[in-house]
Formats: sequence, structure tokens, C-alpha cells
Amino acid sequence: MADAGAMGADFLQLRPEDAPSRGLTGWLADAIRAAIMDGRLGAGAPLPATRLLAGDLGVSRGVIVEVYQRLADEGLVSARPGTGTRVLGVPRLARGASGAAGVSGIDGASAGGLVPAGELVPAGGLVSAGGLGPAGGLVSAGGLGPAGGRERAEIDLSPGVPDLSGFPRAAWLRAERLVLERASVAELGYGDPRGSGALRAELAGWLARTRGLRAGPDDIIVVTGVAQALALLARVLHEGGHREIAVEDPGSRGARDDLAYWGLRPMPVPVDEHGLQVGELARVGTRAVLLTPAHQFPTGVVLAPQRRRDLLDWAAGTNALIVEDDYDAEYRYDRAPVPALHASASGLVAYAGSTSKTLAPGMRLGWLIPPARLHADLVEAKYASDLGSPALPQLVLARLIASGELEQHIRLVRKRQRSRRDALLLALREHLPAARVQGVAAGLHLLITFPRLDGSDAALAEAILETGVLVHPLSWHRQRPGVPGIVLGYAAHTPGRLHEAARRIAQALR
Amino acid sequence: MADAGAMGADFLQLRPEDAPSRGLTGWLADAIRAAIMDGRLGAGAPLPATRLLAGDLGVSRGVIVEVYQRLADEGLVSARPGTGTRVLGVPRLARGASGAAGVSGIDGASAGGLVPAGELVPAGGLVSAGGLGPAGGLVSAGGLGPAGGRERAEIDLSPGVPDLSGFPRAAWLRAERLVLERASVAELGYGDPRGSGALRAELAGWLARTRGLRAGPDDIIVVTGVAQALALLARVLHEGGHREIAVEDPGSRGARDDLAYWGLRPMPVPVDEHGLQVGELARVGTRAVLLTPAHQFPTGVVLAPQRRRDLLDWAAGTNALIVEDDYDAEYRYDRAPVPALHASASGLVAYAGSTSKTLAPGMRLGWLIPPARLHADLVEAKYASDLGSPALPQLVLARLIASGELEQHIRLVRKRQRSRRDALLLALREHLPAARVQGVAAGLHLLITFPRLDGSDAALAEAILETGVLVHPLSWHRQRPGVPGIVLGYAAHTPGRLHEAARRIAQALR
Repeated sequence: MADAGAMGADFLQLRPEDAPSRGLTGWLADAIRAAIMDGRLGAGAPLPATRLLAGDLGVSRGVIVEVYQRLADEGLVSARPGTGTRVLGVPRLARGASGAAGVSGIDGASAGGLVPAGELVPAGGLVSAGGLGPAGGLVSAGGLGPAGGRERAEIDLSPGVPDLSGFPRAAWLRAERLVLERASVAELGYGDPRGSGALRAELAGWLARTRGLRAGPDDIIVVTGVAQALALLARVLHEGGHREIAVEDPGSRGARDDLAYWGLRPMPVPVDEHGLQVGELARVGTRAVLLTPAHQFPTGVVLAPQRRRDLLDWAAGTNALIVEDDYDAEYRYDRAPVPALHASASGLVAYAGSTSKTLAPGMRLGWLIPPARLHADLVEAKYASDLGSPALPQLVLARLIASGELEQHIRLVRKRQRSRRDALLLALREHLPAARVQGVAAGLHLLITFPRLDGSDAALAEAILETGVLVHPLSWHRQRPGVPGIVLGYAAHTPGRLHEAARRIAQALR
Repeated sequence: MADAGAMGADFLQLRPEDAPSRGLTGWLADAIRAAIMDGRLGAGAPLPATRLLAGDLGVSRGVIVEVYQRLADEGLVSARPGTGTRVLGVPRLARGASGAAGVSGIDGASAGGLVPAGELVPAGGLVSAGGLGPAGGLVSAGGLGPAGGRERAEIDLSPGVPDLSGFPRAAWLRAERLVLERASVAELGYGDPRGSGALRAELAGWLARTRGLRAGPDDIIVVTGVAQALALLARVLHEGGHREIAVEDPGSRGARDDLAYWGLRPMPVPVDEHGLQVGELARVGTRAVLLTPAHQFPTGVVLAPQRRRDLLDWAAGTNALIVEDDYDAEYRYDRAPVPALHASASGLVAYAGSTSKTLAPGMRLGWLIPPARLHADLVEAKYASDLGSPALPQLVLARLIASGELEQHIRLVRKRQRSRRDALLLALREHLPAARVQGVAAGLHLLITFPRLDGSDAALAEAILETGVLVHPLSWHRQRPGVPGIVLGYAAHTPGRLHEAARRIAQALR
């Protein structure tokens, strides 16, 4: 079907016979992205017209449109209708660092990029405000007092807690049996502080397929969750002279508190409907920033393409570090997720994710993929912290990835979460028809803002708690004053419970 | 059988009918120790004559002699034959802190204190000297270069590695199945940073039975091994103004490096045949000390009773912290182990142990029991480090303790280790008849010193490695020059291999 004389035939030497039978979109986007990253496609280079390339590859034009849109979302190409699609180029530094360790080849398992993976812990806001109540009072919104909210709530809508009733117990046990049958004696000993080689190999492939990362097994450090990733990064940055780090405002309170504990003062940078206001970074003057680009916590916005580019330019120009907290990218309901920032600029980005939202927070299984220049220091910090992560859960996770059971589990959970989101939206429309609901396209929570609320959102959350429903006031995740709101996590509740919760919230608002 | 009029009948209101059918020695020692700690038996108080107390309780006199000897080993009573046994008293501060949270009642499961439990990670010397070889070169003796020793060795006698082939895989899987069947949804969520309540309850009983600790579940912090315990302690001590900590010399190189990483300079205090030279602590001037009192690493000596008393007096008098690294107390072959220091002075001692020597290092399961005044800060540090330890392995360990399978496993392993020790001793007697062998009564390693060696022990270890046997030179665990020696771990090898290793060591020495 391809015409050897047409432009598409030469373009990147893409051969239709190399295309996987499934996952074509991901394969093609990756091929073009790689060419941009390694300089084969320089700034200003035109991409083939969608119609031509579709013809060359024998695929529908919709596939090509989707691929170009994805690259535009990443800020790699311009996407003005009618004028053709052109490469925008990548920051110089971003290009340098990925190279050697890259994992090439995106296999067909991702079926069009619908199965993402990364995610993070403290964005869920599970770090308590004031006194760290050792007796379990770990989730506590500011106005609710440091303890007791959870005990008083019949319906706990704290964001960050997945549906734990869906944990794949049978699959985990099957995998554990195989691991115990087959693990070598050495695998039970003092291990590699970077984590099990088997898991790192599986993670490299998984993160390539689902988040677009090009990281080899040797680039990955297995950690016990994003909280540990942040602790290690904070330690190493502090040793390197950093005393401040820019964070999103509003943003994860837990992450902020964790960074502050390790000596990095969190400097607030406002978030608007395009995500972090990247232009403010210069004013703040830090040389590091923590953000949640794929699905901002708690507002739910995606970092806009131009902001992505500006962010990478800022980091390249100031030799700064971007810490990418990819905490719930698995749960995107309406279209394929935006690839991780790390995919565009591995030399500028420390990428962190975990299984806390896909399996369960109690697993304490996560990963950190730092720029090469920080790798050795972070491994040393990990070693000095705990010598390395526990062996058996790592080996079990490696099996669950290899067998496809993790992917299967996430598909199932995504379907369930989507129906829960829909149920909550329906209930809110019924009981709170005027509410401004944001962040519904992805994740496990949504945000309702109240631009004209009388009183604070903390007082509102307290009033809602009186009806037996626990929500986070938005102000609890803010450093500076802003529009009041409440954050509602819907993952752990049935549609019926969510409807009841919406009814009570409306009641408290009256 | 008891005579109500005799002294023993009144003594501590001990009632023969309360005595367990097994574990009588432990029960009785604990009762008397508790009375000393809470002040019922003051300094100078006489204990009943062994014959009388034996008659009152209807037990053999040997039991009472054993109990008194054990208390003397702990430094709680004087034990001069003929003059009677008298209470020596405990430091004032030591007495204060245990009280309220104490676990009373030692049950019968320990069968005479033969099943101890605590233990630690880095005493095994698994922290590399210089470059942290990320590719697995983690065990590296000084003179052997930071990498390669392990690869070149046919027989690896590095101390600190247990017999991993004996890991109870079937029991672990059975326990995991039960855990996955029964765990509540909440147990899979973000947990208590102190660790699972179920595990802390089991650990409290286990450590009371096996190590004499009186700690309640709320005193315990579950950690991912002694390395993490030391990292958390170092962090909190550093925040509290500490910049130095006294350590044993020779002592664990791994522990030393870990403390240094977190900002505490390790100050060497010599070890002699009675253990740490406690009198030197005043000269060194630190307000914290890390030591291995039950089985000093690497010399194998037990801290002498008078030194125990002097150590507690020093800590009480200078408001200092004793960090007790109880890394392999389970493996004592010739008599019951000395109880933990913590048992005598919980207000002065931070006790750390793990399952690295009893199950496998890869489990990363340990515990830290600090004085009450440090508890909240350490929980905060644990939370800021990783939010808490992984849930499933904690629940599995809780079940293995509750079912008695951990105890059963340790008995089995102890028998095997003992026969391996005997085999190595026999082989050394045959091939190195003049060798000075130390530290044979307990643990998983022994020490051979060479007072008249030509050249360094590092050179000797290198020569031994030429024959395919990896040993640690004693100097690698020293900070100051001293008698040369080599440390031999025997746990992971069959008698035949150990015999071959001894033959090659002798060959290298010629």
C-alpha cells in the first residue's frame, strides 16, 4: 500500500511492516519523538502531512492525527491547523542526557498508550498537618484538627486512597508462590541497593510502554514509594547546597511537609488552568521544582504544551532539576495520557512513581529515575537509609508486570473508577447543580471550587464532617490564600455511597 | 511441697503454681529482675539461698543457680560464692523509664530462655569501604579493593550472611496465604508509621520471652532493618546537637559508615576480653555509644557484668544514649544468652534488632525500641523517610511468631550452625593447631588473631583470596591499629566446605 516515492516512505525510515499489530499509535509517536530528541528532526522541520504518512504506513489518518496531537501535548511540535505540523525542537541539555541507557522498542502491549503506570504517594495528602499522631491520625485537614477527622467520618473522601477492596490478592499470592519456588539464595541476601535486577528490567519496559520513558534498568532506583524518593532527593539536593525547592500552590501538602523535614523550604508557585505558572520560577529563584505535570494535585489540570516547553527551557537554562511526581497517571478516562516529562528530557528530570494508587499504598513499592548526574549520590543515600528495599515484594511485582496481571488489574480498576467518577458527577449535578467541578478527566479525586463562599473552606469541611463526610479543604493544600474549595476522593466508594455523600455535602452547604 | 513459713514463700510472692511447666528459668529470672527494676528489691537486698528458694518452689536447685547466674551476668546481683547473693541495684534513670508500658508475664514458650531473637544488619560488615559499587560489590574488605573479592571467591566466608538455603519458604508462603485471606482493607492502606499493630504486639511478647525486654507494642517502631534504625537514630541525634558517637573498636564497619553518612563521627573505644572499655567513654566525651553487648562484633566477647553496670551508670550520669545492636543473640550455643541491656534500663537504651540473621537479610524486617523521650522524634523521622514499612511482610512475620514457626525455625538453624561451627573448629585444629580462635560460643562467625604475623592482615586476606577463600581482615573493622586477625563467617557453608576453607587458609599462611 505504501508508495516508495512518497515523502512518508523516507520519513524516519518508518516501515509499515515494523509497526506492531497493536499499539501502533505509541510506536509511531515514540519513533518521531526519538528522532526529535536525538536531533534527526531539528527545530522547524516539518512533519509529513497526516494524509500522506497514513497512506505510506497503510493506517487510518486518525492514527497519525492522534500521534501528532500527542507530540503537541508534549510540547515537541507545533499544531496549528492548516499550516502543517512543525518540530519545535528540544532544549539542548534535555537532548544530551538520555542517549546511551535508553530502552528502545515499544512493544505492542500498551495498545495505544491506554495503560499508564507511574504514580505517587504523598500527593494524596496523607501527611498530617501538625502533630504526627502516632496512633493513626495521619490524615487530617487543617481546619479539622490534627486528629479525629477519620474517626468521625462515615464516608471518608480523603483524596489519595485507592479502592483497596480491589487489591488482587489471588494474583499476588500466585506470584509470591512462584517467587518463593524460584528465587535464588542470593536474591534473599543483602541485595543491590538499587533494587532487584529482575524488577528494574520489568519496570524499564513497563515505564517505556505506559509513560514513554526511555530508561534502562540501570537508571532505575527501586524505592519504598514516592515519599522515599522525595526524602532521598531532598537529602542529596541539601548536600548539594540547595535550601529551597519550588512547589505547586495549591499542591500536595504531604510532599511539601516531607521536603521541609529534610531541609528544603517549599516555595509556592501558583497553578492556573494551564498548570504550574512556569514564568514564576525565575522570580522564585530556586534551582529545583517539584510538580505533578500529568494530573496536577489537587486541581487536576494537565501542564499545557507551551508550559512544558518553557519548563524544560528554564531547567536547561538554569541547570535546575525538575522532580516529576507521576502519582496517578494510570487513571485517565477520556483519552490517552500525556507522556511523562521525563520522556522528553531525561537529563533534566527526576521521575518518581509508585504502586500506591494501582495496587495499594501498604505495598510501599515505588521507583525513582534521576538524571545520570545524581544517580550515584541517590544510590548512596538509599543504601545509607535502608541498604535497599525488601526482596520478596519486588520479585512479586516483577512477576505481575511480566505476566500482564498488573496491566489487567489496572484496566479493571480504571473501568470501576470511571463509573464511580460518573456517579459522583451525576450526584453533584443533582444536589449541587451550580458547583464548579474541576479535574474530572483523570485521577481518583475531583475538586469543587466556591468562588463566592462565605467563610473558609476549612469551616465548610468541618460542617461537611458534621454530616459524616470527610473531605479535604483546598486551603489545606495551599500555601497562599486562594479560591476556596474542597477535594473529593471517590475511588474507595460505591456509586450509592457517593450519591449519599453528595447529598450530605449539599445539605452542609445550605 | 512449699513450706509457708520459709523465707522463699514470701519472697516476691512467688507461687509455684504460677510457674509455667516449661521456661521456668526465664519466668523466675524475669520476676526477680522486675522486682529489682521497680525498686521492690533495693541495692544490698539479699536473695534467698538457692537451696531454700528451690525447696519453696519445688524445683531443682540448679534452676535457681542458673537464674542467679543470669542476673549476675546482667550486672543486677553480686555472685560471690559462699557469701550469698545480693542485689547491686540499678541506676536511677534506668529504673524510671520502663514502668508503664512494660509487658508483664513471661510465658512458657521460651523454654528456659533458649530462644533469643534480636539481631542486626550492618554488624555483618556488608557496607562497602569506599566506592559503593552499585553493581553488587557490596562486601569489600579494605585491602581487597572495593570490588571483586566476592567474584573471585569460591568459598565466601564474609561474616554476617546467614544460611539462606534454609529460609523457610513453605512456612512463609502458608503465612502469606493466611494474611492475604484475612487482612483487612485498612491493613493494605497507608499504615501506622510505627508499623503494623499486629506485628508490634507479637514482637513485644517475642522480645520479652527471648531477650528479656519489657516493651509494650506502643514502644516499638518497626523498621526495615538495623541499618534503618541507625539512620533514624543518627538523624534524630544530629538534630539534637550530637556530632559524634562512641563505637567499638574493632567493631562493625558497616554501622560506622552508616552513622558517619548521617553526620555522626564514630569515635573509637577499645574492646578487650570483657567487651567495650567503658571507662574510656568519659575520655572520648560523647553522649551516645553504639555497641553489641550480647556478642561483640567481630571479637565475639560478651560485655562483662561489671562493665554492664558501669555502662548504665555512665549513661545515667551523663544523660547519654546507649544504642544496643542485638544482631545475632539467637545463636548462642553453650548456654542461655545474656538478656539485652534494654531489659535492665529501657530509659537509657535504644534497642535494635532484625530478622536478617534468623530469616534472611532480603526481608528487611527489623525493630527499634528507643527510650520514651526519643520515641516521637524517631516516629517522625521514620514517617518522613518512607511513611512506614511495607504491610504484607510485617503481617507475615506476625503470623510466623504467633504460630511458633519462627521459634521452630531458629531452633533448627541453631542446631545446624552449631555443627558448622564445630566442623570449622575441628578443621582449624587440624590445619592451624596454633591458631588463637575467639568468639566461638555464639554467633555466625569466629575470629582468629595472629599476634606475631609478619605483614598486615589485609595482605593475609589477599593471600587467602588467592586460594579462593574470602575472609575479612580484622583491620577492616578497626579504626586504630591492633593485633592482626581474620574474621570467618561459617553459617552459609557445609562442614566439608569449611574443612576445605581451613585447609586453604593454612596453605596461604605458610
